Amino acid sequence: MTLQTVSLNKSHGGTQGVYKHASASTGTDMTFSVYVPAHAEGAKLPAVTYLSGLTCTHANVTEKGEFRHACAELGLIFVAPDTSPRGQGVPGDPANAYDFGLGAGFFVDATEAPFAKNYRMWSYVTEELPGLIRENFPIDPARQSILGHSMGGHGALTVALRHPDRYRAASAFAPIVAPSQVPWGTKALGGYLGSDKQTWRRHDTVALIEDGARYSGFLVDIGDADPFLTEQLRPELLQAACEKAGIPLQLRRQAGYDHSYYFISTFMEAHLRWHAERLKA
Amino acid sequence: MTLQTVSLNKSHGGTQGVYKHASASTGTDMTFSVYVPAHAEGAKLPAVTYLSGLTCTHANVTEKGEFRHACAELGLIFVAPDTSPRGQGVPGDPANAYDFGLGAGFFVDATEAPFAKNYRMWSYVTEELPGLIRENFPIDPARQSILGHSMGGHGALTVALRHPDRYRAASAFAPIVAPSQVPWGTKALGGYLGSDKQTWRRHDTVALIEDGARYSGFLVDIGDADPFLTEQLRPELLQAACEKAGIPLQLRRQAGYDHSYYFISTFMEAHLRWHAERLKA
Repeated sequence: MTLQTVSLNKSHGGTQGVYKHASASTGTDMTFSVYVPAHAEGAKLPAVTYLSGLTCTHANVTEKGEFRHACAELGLIFVAPDTSPRGQGVPGDPANAYDFGLGAGFFVDATEAPFAKNYRMWSYVTEELPGLIRENFPIDPARQSILGHSMGGHGALTVALRHPDRYRAASAFAPIVAPSQVPWGTKALGGYLGSDKQTWRRHDTVALIEDGARYSGFLVDIGDADPFLTEQLRPELLQAACEKAGIPLQLRRQAGYDHSYYFISTFMEAHLRWHAERLKA
Repeated sequence: MTLQTVSLNKSHGGTQGVYKHASASTGTDMTFSVYVPAHAEGAKLPAVTYLSGLTCTHANVTEKGEFRHACAELGLIFVAPDTSPRGQGVPGDPANAYDFGLGAGFFVDATEAPFAKNYRMWSYVTEELPGLIRENFPIDPARQSILGHSMGGHGALTVALRHPDRYRAASAFAPIVAPSQVPWGTKALGGYLGSDKQTWRRHDTVALIEDGARYSGFLVDIGDADPFLTEQLRPELLQAACEKAGIPLQLRRQAGYDHSYYFISTFMEAHLRWHAERLKA
């Protein structure tokens, strides 16, 4: 698979790259960013994948995430994919809403027309992208982890629960934890997967846990001034599911913080340290 | 003077605000950002003003500058104004170039038509904005400093040289140091100040030093992969002027870094520590 380099910038001693490639999963070009810290020749580094929220591309966290300082210190590669297929012929939300279609792939493989052809973000994020990263960057495939924000927090937690052996750590900023029970999620899962709610359960963190999926533990930060807290995020549902299942959950409600990158960037370093502990254990 | 709050976001324990006001200097609305770290009730904090480069608004550094972590730790207020007047009726570059007019005020008070009416960024940055900040934020006016990037580095160094008693520290990322001698500068100073090059000298760091201005010392970082290094920035001219004048200059050529915020954010913390040492001395 050929990667096209869009840009390379030295930052915090390492290299922030942006890359483009023709994706077999989505049938479109896909863009992602990778930060590679300075490292010894021949070294293989642990890699953290970050999944972004609604409306975002790779660029939001790449520009505003404040992750490079910590990645440089901790020796972590940081991978940030887009949140949906894009481009000519890719269908979006019929009403151009922000919460479905472009920028809102929800990390599922769609089964419903007209989305099934391109909206295959589950395959992209769990198979195609990891393969590309292995082939093109100095990563140690045995030391991978995943985190995300909002819709991307949903993606990170569901990916970790379904691939607990591949991802040694998983954390989230303000994740959607029970998409089957909230407006953003029911719109997305209904639109991409159809009306049979049984098929939604494999893309719902709380339902996955109820159905028996287990993980070594999650770190979740969420702002108590997040405008989406009570209607869309509902962290109490994750808390209850984890308690019942015996999954260690460190859920921190951060006073005064909202849903923005001003919140994410504040706690990024703590998340990366938490990942590094588990990746280097 | 009434400030309109555009946005407030908690970040790194403090508050990142964006504000708008009707400017007496420019005759337009002006927008700026202020980060106020957590602080004891009634405390007065030192304040750092950051001047941005060509094409930028307050938003570039606010989103990409990675300054909040260090400001929170060091107890510094961080002020980021726009780089020009904007709005209906404000003339720009006749050919819509990026290096003159909108986003390119060069921190001078224009004397030439049609720019003289609005392009009064010198007065704005040295008089009006500091007054607004004093009135509206918990700053200690005796502890101010200034830094900037590229065109804003030019602004920071010239402001410091002409107000050495007001600004206790001054530093720059990839500054334009001799605008009278480089294409960006000759276009801007000619356009705003006219053809009499004597009037340019008060807005040229190297010329100010040649004409007798003195300062306690500068910290300047510049990337050796900066595409503007040899034609527009020419740090060797600053080095020669400072050596001759006996002004301490810490000029660091950073291997592999370019002109972007990936460069600036890498060295922002070091600059803020350098400012804090001098602001707290």
